[in-house]
Amino acid sequence: MSTALIILAAGQGTRMNSDLPKVLHPVAGAPMLVHAMKSGAALDPDHTVIVAGHGAEAVSKAAQTYDETVQVAIQSEQKGTAHAVAQAAPLLEGYEGDAIVLYGDTPFIQPETLTRMAQARAQHDVVVLGFEAADPGRYGRLKMTGKDLDAIVEFKDADDATRAITFCNSGVICASAPLLFDLISQVGNDNASAEYYLTDIIALARARGLSATAIGCDEAETMGVNSRAELAMAEAAFQTRERAELLADGVTLMAPDTVYLAHDTVIGRDSVVEPHVVFGPGVTVESGAQIRAFSHLEGCHVSRGAIVGPYARLRPGAELAEDTRVGNFVEIKNAVIDAGAKVNHLSYIGDAQVGEHSNIGAGTITCNYDGVMKHKTTIGQNAFIGSNTMLVAPVTIGDEAMTGSGSVITQDVPDGALALARSKQTNKPGMARKLFEILKSKRANRGKGAV
Amino acid sequence: MSTALIILAAGQGTRMNSDLPKVLHPVAGAPMLVHAMKSGAALDPDHTVIVAGHGAEAVSKAAQTYDETVQVAIQSEQKGTAHAVAQAAPLLEGYEGDAIVLYGDTPFIQPETLTRMAQARAQHDVVVLGFEAADPGRYGRLKMTGKDLDAIVEFKDADDATRAITFCNSGVICASAPLLFDLISQVGNDNASAEYYLTDIIALARARGLSATAIGCDEAETMGVNSRAELAMAEAAFQTRERAELLADGVTLMAPDTVYLAHDTVIGRDSVVEPHVVFGPGVTVESGAQIRAFSHLEGCHVSRGAIVGPYARLRPGAELAEDTRVGNFVEIKNAVIDAGAKVNHLSYIGDAQVGEHSNIGAGTITCNYDGVMKHKTTIGQNAFIGSNTMLVAPVTIGDEAMTGSGSVITQDVPDGALALARSKQTNKPGMARKLFEILKSKRANRGKGAV
Amino acid sequence: MSTALIILAAGQGTRMNSDLPKVLHPVAGAPMLVHAMKSGAALDPDHTVIVAGHGAEAVSKAAQTYDETVQVAIQSEQKGTAHAVAQAAPLLEGYEGDAIVLYGDTPFIQPETLTRMAQARAQHDVVVLGFEAADPGRYGRLKMTGKDLDAIVEFKDADDATRAITFCNSGVICASAPLLFDLISQVGNDNASAEYYLTDIIALARARGLSATAIGCDEAETMGVNSRAELAMAEAAFQTRERAELLADGVTLMAPDTVYLAHDTVIGRDSVVEPHVVFGPGVTVESGAQIRAFSHLEGCHVSRGAIVGPYARLRPGAELAEDTRVGNFVEIKNAVIDAGAKVNHLSYIGDAQVGEHSNIGAGTITCNYDGVMKHKTTIGQNAFIGSNTMLVAPVTIGDEAMTGSGSVITQDVPDGALALARSKQTNKPGMARKLFEILKSKRANRGKGAV
Repeated sequence: MSTALIILAAGQGTRMNSDLPKVLHPVAGAPMLVHAMKSGAALDPDHTVIVAGHGAEAVSKAAQTYDETVQVAIQSEQKGTAHAVAQAAPLLEGYEGDAIVLYGDTPFIQPETLTRMAQARAQHDVVVLGFEAADPGRYGRLKMTGKDLDAIVEFKDADDATRAITFCNSGVICASAPLLFDLISQVGNDNASAEYYLTDIIALARARGLSATAIGCDEAETMGVNSRAELAMAEAAFQTRERAELLADGVTLMAPDTVYLAHDTVIGRDSVVEPHVVFGPGVTVESGAQIRAFSHLEGCHVSRGAIVGPYARLRPGAELAEDTRVGNFVEIKNAVIDAGAKVNHLSYIGDAQVGEHSNIGAGTITCNYDGVMKHKTTIGQNAFIGSNTMLVAPVTIGDEAMTGSGSVITQDVPDGALALARSKQTNKPGMARKLFEILKSKRANRGKGAV
Repeated sequence: MSTALIILAAGQGTRMNSDLPKVLHPVAGAPMLVHAMKSGAALDPDHTVIVAGHGAEAVSKAAQTYDETVQVAIQSEQKGTAHAVAQAAPLLEGYEGDAIVLYGDTPFIQPETLTRMAQARAQHDVVVLGFEAADPGRYGRLKMTGKDLDAIVEFKDADDATRAITFCNSGVICASAPLLFDLISQVGNDNASAEYYLTDIIALARARGLSATAIGCDEAETMGVNSRAELAMAEAAFQTRERAELLADGVTLMAPDTVYLAHDTVIGRDSVVEPHVVFGPGVTVESGAQIRAFSHLEGCHVSRGAIVGPYARLRPGAELAEDTRVGNFVEIKNAVIDAGAKVNHLSYIGDAQVGEHSNIGAGTITCNYDGVMKHKTTIGQNAFIGSNTMLVAPVTIGDEAMTGSGSVITQDVPDGALALARSKQTNKPGMARKLFEILKSKRANRGKGAV
Repeated sequence: MSTALIILAAGQGTRMNSDLPKVLHPVAGAPMLVHAMKSGAALDPDHTVIVAGHGAEAVSKAAQTYDETVQVAIQSEQKGTAHAVAQAAPLLEGYEGDAIVLYGDTPFIQPETLTRMAQARAQHDVVVLGFEAADPGRYGRLKMTGKDLDAIVEFKDADDATRAITFCNSGVICASAPLLFDLISQVGNDNASAEYYLTDIIALARARGLSATAIGCDEAETMGVNSRAELAMAEAAFQTRERAELLADGVTLMAPDTVYLAHDTVIGRDSVVEPHVVFGPGVTVESGAQIRAFSHLEGCHVSRGAIVGPYARLRPGAELAEDTRVGNFVEIKNAVIDAGAKVNHLSYIGDAQVGEHSNIGAGTITCNYDGVMKHKTTIGQNAFIGSNTMLVAPVTIGDEAMTGSGSVITQDVPDGALALARSKQTNKPGMARKLFEILKSKRANRGKGAV
């Protein structure tokens, strides 16, 4: 079945108390809007139309960053959900497939749920997504007769019998695109808010003798976000689900509640993640790796047998080959660390290539930035970089080469060579004692001066 | 209405199992006693009297550090709450205003609650603070007739009907100071513990035909702390409340449960705080700043647009201007980082001024301590400090100046100058290979020797 | 009473989804098997026999690492618990004492519980460990008449009356060794799984007119681990219990839920642990120490008055004497830091001795590794190591000696001497400005080239 997605993303989200458009607030490292787009992508849609309003430029940019084929319709005034969907009509003119309406602030609808909606369309003209509400509160109620959806009744219009219904409206709706826009064109705004409600199309459809149905999903999928507290709850719900999946996949999370995952984190079986670890977007960890406490990873790859941290920061472009070690207070950015190489302590390795089995001493820094441009450092295999070596890029260190501790390396070092850039040590006997005395007497005098 | 605070802070807190006086155990970075003082301060009191006993000197010092006008009365023996309050009498002799009795181990009474007590005093001679207890257990019960408080009945003295009452006594009490001390002078100690109970003044007052009332507050406000487990619960309760307030104020906390706030933390709208962040006392963060994971802040200011961390440690006196960047494994202490300046990696910047848009290379250290005194480092605008530069203070680096990577800078660098302190690099061909061989054969021999 | 432990540890643990044998998955830093061994050790057993199967070699090694006297029996096929116990018979041939059967995936049985079982053996031939199940589900039911255990009835064989019993079988069982093996030899496998069940020995014993009883323990003790999710729950349960014990012992944990303890962590009274701290195995902290946020400790000792962190990493062999300070982004490994010494910032101190009251400047590194061997650094008392000093081991710095900032120290420094290894600073006027211009024009040209 060919489908177009219409994602409503125009709302201001007043209760978010934010300058950022609501749908751009992130959950697990991706804007809520992107979560909705990812779910919808499971239908392999012919078109994706974002209806933007508040912060339309930023919303449009974020959507197109995730999927450049996305089209954006502008709803310049907020006149209700039916009015919002209507803005997508010109972009879908002549499109004969289905249209499904999603919401940019409802990030958890599962792809499988949308697939079930699409399947239900085979038997019904309009399909609505409902859920059994634990506390139906003021949700709209779905009045069903068997599989037929008779009406969506707003809480305020519902009699007691209808209010007793617990099957509620999520707002997600599916119909053929021409029918959807045709029905919407008939929706009126004769209500207290003077808004055009998308839910009204059910009554219009039934009045025409068309069939409607509602399928159900887990209430958790329909969780919407309207405040920072709800955003935090959405984040927590996402994390709980993803952690459970990793555990089921055979990953050890010593303290799942302290590990934060991104929407796309991949971790292989028999990997171990210690407490207090944060994964930003774009991380893949192979099987049998170890991510120790207090590590922070984003946009990186960790191979089998690698041990990361504690206190390792892997930034985008860090690629750790098998059996590598990246230790405490070490930052790796845009650098390949080849198999068996070690960067154990207090180092910054950026824009670099470190060869197999090389050892990078504590305090090593790749001086990749000259104040204007970034440059590359290349280190060969089995090299030994002495502690506190400054590698002033662009520079190449050969295989089995060595640098003396504390050296500033500005020229290439050939294979097997030792590079030194070091002043001779001088010991001045008794001078330290004298210096301590001078300093103490200075302080004593300064103390007097202050009186 | 003029008021004096009497804060009882003499108890040992045996169940705390601590050498530290109970009221000095901190919640959210401030001693519990200070929390009580802060609440009471809302009444703009004429006097604040702390009744100290165990660890009186330390208690006195902590109280006076927070408010130097505080007076301290000593209760040398612990003979009950009425006896404790009586110790404040000499310090309030002749004072005609109200006196309100608070507790140093009950840190959560809200200022608004005290204001309501003060207002209730207009209609009643004595005002008690009560709460609806979820589980009344062994709390004293407040017997009310309409708004009149007839009696406070201790659990052990209560009949079944009285035990069924769920409105309980918090211990907080308010009366005119002369009346309070007059009533207390009549309290006896004819009970199992041979203690003088403050609650007895209600019966004494009613017997004189005086009026008493009780107002209610949320049970959470009356939470007292008697053990480390309760201290941890108090901390958790405080954190939950403060996090919720920040969320409501438009701050994003990705993982609220992992962010620890101090009693005075201020964070502006649209700032984002990632997981695992700790705020010590004295932190203000402006709107639109970003505090990344694993950061630790205390006594510092972070301006709009600044990005802090991950793994940034801001210590007292750190001031980050707009759009600054302080990155991983960086410590800033008593230093101003001007607008747009960057300190991204593995640096210690202490007792320093960093000018606008300057870039501080990885591994830079301000050598501020000579073993006896601290000295200042001044860096101009648009300067470029090469990686691993040691800035031996006192020293000044000019505007648009540059230091070579690995330099130890002991003299001032003029504007626009390049400072270098570096040895020439020498490459010794084949020497690394030889060294590896020598070391390996040494190890092999050592191995033999060990046999 | 003399006792032998038989610990069943042969299972694959399919639901763990792991290559690691189930019983080797760790809780609080020790394999589950070791937890079972530790509990059993309270009985001071004459023999400990581990029945291994899947991953027997690794299981055997882990067991013998914890206790080298352990014997291992191999169950090469998994034919049920009775069959597993039978494999231990040859190793206990002629042993006349009791045998108690424990499980390597049930880490929480308390020593006190086993002692109570041993005591119950005085009155009964066979003793089973039971528990009152909150949700008995499919557990085997213990049919009791007074103190007599009549039968263990599997859920599938139970009638409704039996299913209503909530006293359930933990699987832990105790009898004299000869009797146990004799009964087991009679167990058949005429059941759906064709397995030999240890529980069948109760019926066999009763049929012989022997007496059996069951004693109860807390259900939490009987928690078994069959999946990563259950492993995480076991870890959480362990942590909750250990944190509560520390609080009761007078340790302040500001945020107990964020502090991870090992099975053997010892922390003294009036020590304070801030949020987000991880203890690996082998840590002892004396009274009155402070472990600040984001610290990571393993195999180390912290003395009274020491302040550790934030962001301190203490590795095995770190010994901090009284009133020492180890600060942020500092790693200490196999090193003694004597009383009053300070290592405050960005340092690596490994294989070293630091004398009393010495001050180690920021960025100091002990260059302990030459690419082949490790060497020792010795620093005297009251020494002052300038920032970014490289101490190329083996090397000795004398008492009251000083090193200049940025020095690479390759030779010993006598007491009271000042060691310098530093190039003279040269300022090149205007050169920085020129360099910036050259770099910018290079970038501009590169930009052109790209067009």
